Amino acid sequence: MHYDLLPATGGYTDIAIGDLVTEAGVTIPEVSLRLHAFYTATEGDADYAEFSAGPLPGTDLRQRPIILVEHALTGNGNVVDWWEDMVGEGKPIDTNRYLVLCANVLGGCDGSTGPSSPHPDGKAWGSRFPGLSIRDMVTAEKKMLEVLGITQVHAIIGASMGGARTLEWTLMYPDTVLAALPIAVSARASAWQIGIQSTQIRFIEADPHWQGGDYYGTGLTPSEGMGQARRIAHLTYRGELEIDERFGTDPQVGENPLGPYRSPDQRFAVESYLDLHAERLKKRFDPGTYAVLTDALNRHDVGRGRNGMNAALGSSQVPTMVVGVDTDILYPLHQQEHLSRNLGDFIGLSKITSPTGHDGFLIESRQMGQILVKFLGKVEQLSAKPVE
Amino acid sequence: MHYDLLPATGGYTDIAIGDLVTEAGVTIPEVSLRLHAFYTATEGDADYAEFSAGPLPGTDLRQRPIILVEHALTGNGNVVDWWEDMVGEGKPIDTNRYLVLCANVLGGCDGSTGPSSPHPDGKAWGSRFPGLSIRDMVTAEKKMLEVLGITQVHAIIGASMGGARTLEWTLMYPDTVLAALPIAVSARASAWQIGIQSTQIRFIEADPHWQGGDYYGTGLTPSEGMGQARRIAHLTYRGELEIDERFGTDPQVGENPLGPYRSPDQRFAVESYLDLHAERLKKRFDPGTYAVLTDALNRHDVGRGRNGMNAALGSSQVPTMVVGVDTDILYPLHQQEHLSRNLGDFIGLSKITSPTGHDGFLIESRQMGQILVKFLGKVEQLSAKPVE
Repeated sequence: MHYDLLPATGGYTDIAIGDLVTEAGVTIPEVSLRLHAFYTATEGDADYAEFSAGPLPGTDLRQRPIILVEHALTGNGNVVDWWEDMVGEGKPIDTNRYLVLCANVLGGCDGSTGPSSPHPDGKAWGSRFPGLSIRDMVTAEKKMLEVLGITQVHAIIGASMGGARTLEWTLMYPDTVLAALPIAVSARASAWQIGIQSTQIRFIEADPHWQGGDYYGTGLTPSEGMGQARRIAHLTYRGELEIDERFGTDPQVGENPLGPYRSPDQRFAVESYLDLHAERLKKRFDPGTYAVLTDALNRHDVGRGRNGMNAALGSSQVPTMVVGVDTDILYPLHQQEHLSRNLGDFIGLSKITSPTGHDGFLIESRQMGQILVKFLGKVEQLSAKPVE
Repeated sequence: MHYDLLPATGGYTDIAIGDLVTEAGVTIPEVSLRLHAFYTATEGDADYAEFSAGPLPGTDLRQRPIILVEHALTGNGNVVDWWEDMVGEGKPIDTNRYLVLCANVLGGCDGSTGPSSPHPDGKAWGSRFPGLSIRDMVTAEKKMLEVLGITQVHAIIGASMGGARTLEWTLMYPDTVLAALPIAVSARASAWQIGIQSTQIRFIEADPHWQGGDYYGTGLTPSEGMGQARRIAHLTYRGELEIDERFGTDPQVGENPLGPYRSPDQRFAVESYLDLHAERLKKRFDPGTYAVLTDALNRHDVGRGRNGMNAALGSSQVPTMVVGVDTDILYPLHQQEHLSRNLGDFIGLSKITSPTGHDGFLIESRQMGQILVKFLGKVEQLSAKPVE
């Protein structure tokens, strides 16, 4: 392993992985992925302490197992930001024990090559950026590991779009992965998901600022369309019980949604909440990336070219534990039950019980943490087994 | 009862109900509702046979019990069109036995006064049309019954927005209603519903053709926005299991959604299906009505001004049977269970078991029919009881 290429703990670095040919046959030249790394120096481990101060050529992280975390649609490589209770010193994914890696996905807008990053001609990729599949993202990540000289990953963990990549990892590169934990995901996109996701893409493309996808550098961004998409998406991420407990039919403070005339300025509290989430995403996320990644979710299907979904799952040789949330309407629990029935090396199904819906993996820290501890305990047992 | 005002069976007539003051205090002058009526002449009943040929002044439908059916958001008074297996000769709501009435809702675009109908000044109401509550709709229907001279309704039956009106009928005019069957509805809008419904309104208002709601007569209609709203709405009406069984990840015939570049012309089959439903609605429905009625659903709350939701339900004096669909994500079954626990004169909860979701009341004819037969049987028993 080329530890000199790793960033300092908590930092990131861009890993150039060369050209990538997509599943549908388009070559993306000069791809790079932005990689974040997390590993805590422990007392009595001078090497680590030194190393944690920055990337030191030749420093060896020795036997530290590697955990690759896969982020969801609008996440990024900075896993301690969006999963702070799960990753860190003494936390379920313990940076005292593990070297934790998390890269911004191919097509992303947080440092990796995507529609908003420069094409070799210097202008943004824009509409020239091809359609991606989940497999293309995994292909890029495998290339990244190759550049880093990493041949074995202790565990791959991811939820939602990260769960889709996790599943594909187990099928595309089983020799690289000791164990996997796909969370709140399915073997393939359901028609309902494709329906609601493709509609979100249309909101973005219907925004007059979209300009066929080539809005970069024009000073106009299809943020309104992405905001509309986010409002709908957020309602698929959250359970109706949780949202109702928080907002019910409350009016937004100072506004009257029951007034004589309907008005966008007179909102229920939940409308204001959705506005807030839409505004937040508009500030931090690129609509072109939102469209490309959402489309990749539509294309998610482990069965493609592998004799169908169940044959593909059955062929899996990677010990895989599955997690679902009982109130998830985007990836309903029956989809994780389906994975459980069909995976070739299934080691358990854990259910998060919560009114929160899909986002339970982000919100229910106690339950999610217990599941991670249980899973990683199992993987330690697996890795301790003598090679047959 | 003024039978001379009734239309011929299968036909409709516009009932002028005078001015209406909304719950929020706006007067709508010269309101009319378009009323459809269905009643079959039976053999050996010359009066009915004669009557069914057309409205005959003075003809008496005598002891025929009246059933008022309340339509859902994009329905209309022509109940045999959208609930054809439920209403007719020998059908669960048997027109041999009952006089079935169904009026286009206040605010509607199928003949009743709404944003697209003429203001007294001759131009369309447009943005001058006020915000409506479910109660305003019921107020209008009560006025309609008064004009018709109807003081007693055997049963009120409605699903979704029609279920909301049905519930309000039992609380606003309990003396008029012998029994009620609200289907796939709740005591009040949930925050999740308000979230997804208010977002649909925004799609319409974000359409450049909206023109502040005053697009009538301009030749431009915010149909695209309403189409987007419909795509999302349809996905809340249908269960993901049913949609997935039909479409899965199939591409639309002749298109390739897995191609090298993402394109709106290369669709999954489910996208084409949603396009179809959006196009159909665009042809037959007014976006201004869609916005007003959707807003009324947001305002639905039986507890408003009645000491809260459960006190309001508890005060109900009308025997009420409740129906839900087990896979409904828009009005989840726990909402009907809540009604059942709290209604003051609850006579039963029936569950439609179906992968179809909310639209189960339209699709699962066998189950819906059995429920209607059971309900109407109970009501016959109630109506046969001697007055105490």
